Amino acid sequence: MNNVIYIPVLGMPEIKANDDIVQLVLDCLLKQNETILENDILVITQKIVSKAENRTVDINSITSTIEANELALSLNKDPKLVQLILNESQSIVKLDLKRGIIITENKIGHISANAGIDFSNVKGKTNATLLPENPDKSAKLIHKNLLNKLDVKNIGVIISDTFGRPWRIGQTNISIGSFGIDPFENYINNEDMYGEKLNSTNICIVDELAGGAEILMKKTLNVPIVIVRGLSYKFSSKGSSEILRDKEKDLFR
Amino acid sequence: MNNVIYIPVLGMPEIKANDDIVQLVLDCLLKQNETILENDILVITQKIVSKAENRTVDINSITSTIEANELALSLNKDPKLVQLILNESQSIVKLDLKRGIIITENKIGHISANAGIDFSNVKGKTNATLLPENPDKSAKLIHKNLLNKLDVKNIGVIISDTFGRPWRIGQTNISIGSFGIDPFENYINNEDMYGEKLNSTNICIVDELAGGAEILMKKTLNVPIVIVRGLSYKFSSKGSSEILRDKEKDLFR
Repeated sequence: MNNVIYIPVLGMPEIKANDDIVQLVLDCLLKQNETILENDILVITQKIVSKAENRTVDINSITSTIEANELALSLNKDPKLVQLILNESQSIVKLDLKRGIIITENKIGHISANAGIDFSNVKGKTNATLLPENPDKSAKLIHKNLLNKLDVKNIGVIISDTFGRPWRIGQTNISIGSFGIDPFENYINNEDMYGEKLNSTNICIVDELAGGAEILMKKTLNVPIVIVRGLSYKFSSKGSSEILRDKEKDLFR
Repeated sequence: MNNVIYIPVLGMPEIKANDDIVQLVLDCLLKQNETILENDILVITQKIVSKAENRTVDINSITSTIEANELALSLNKDPKLVQLILNESQSIVKLDLKRGIIITENKIGHISANAGIDFSNVKGKTNATLLPENPDKSAKLIHKNLLNKLDVKNIGVIISDTFGRPWRIGQTNISIGSFGIDPFENYINNEDMYGEKLNSTNICIVDELAGGAEILMKKTLNVPIVIVRGLSYKFSSKGSSEILRDKEKDLFR
């Protein structure tokens, strides 16, 4: 077991629609005397992927329906924001009318407040980013672009976002999309250090890596990408959509 | 922003009741040409803290009550295990009779399956570890012991355990106890890169650090401690009990 190093990518410029994130990362790394090596893992915040994919919206461009207006009134929230949340969601999971909280399952299947719509670190007070339409596909495209530009066999790509949790105060970074790295390290049927079978241990390593990377991202600075180096992991073409639990197997829906 | 390095502590011996974990760590580090530096953070798995604190139990020593017997029958679970779970818990949060799942709020306030009772990596098929009675206090004692033995002003101490999550498949490591490091990095009222106020960002960094460390712990190997180096963080005497959300503010209880 080696040390594992988290390397922040510094000096990334403001991302615009159709920007080549991979080329911008390589340009930044050159300046900081770094590069991307075989089996490195790139953790990329959703924010810049959404910007590159033109998934930004001016809240003023939204027209709210009667349904959104009524919900907004009972939540004491902006009707345009409520409409945008509904547009991005397939179902409402929970409402807290008193505190104006709306938890939804978004179109991809992730459960969070406000469907991942985020006004922070976006130019213009009324502009927000939406989550990428298919973050696993976004990760796969970035992976392909990396392999085209680098002389390596594999790079893990994780797209992260900051989500709240039930029961626990504060948010943590998790993976909403990935490619090239198995989302899980599954120990089921493996033996522990005393030779006993591990019955249920299936660690979601892409969520843990997203969390580890967040600590270097610093919301108020401009570190949208962190490289994780030194980890041995299994290649997989499966993405983070595998993490989503079926409603039927979910005790809290 | 520097690189952050996760260093596994290798070769830790089997931990017995009343062992001095800190001394054992220092002995191991000496052999791997490592040490503990100012502001390092130690992530320590609950398993060895529980063993050192004699929080192990032989399931055969448990006598089950009628309440536990009835619950065990409907869950198709061992009545002694159900009794032990109830002993360690203050309330049942959710039951899945079909799949034999019991989610409780344990005596410390953490919500998980089986109240954190764990048979893996414990000698003897019928032996389990219980969570430390007061993990924040355990972290504080380890912190004090570290400062006594090292010429440093602060070391962050995090005690971790692997918990499942609603909505998401797979477990991740989180912090059940800590000392010397503020559990949160709070950006509320800070400005983002465009000068806009961040309204709700309060990152639970001790959970993220526990997750990042887990990736080096490997359930089937013997890496119960990981050192995190290179992170600047705020000292705090607050512990991870601060992370627990009041039932009144919890949408999912």
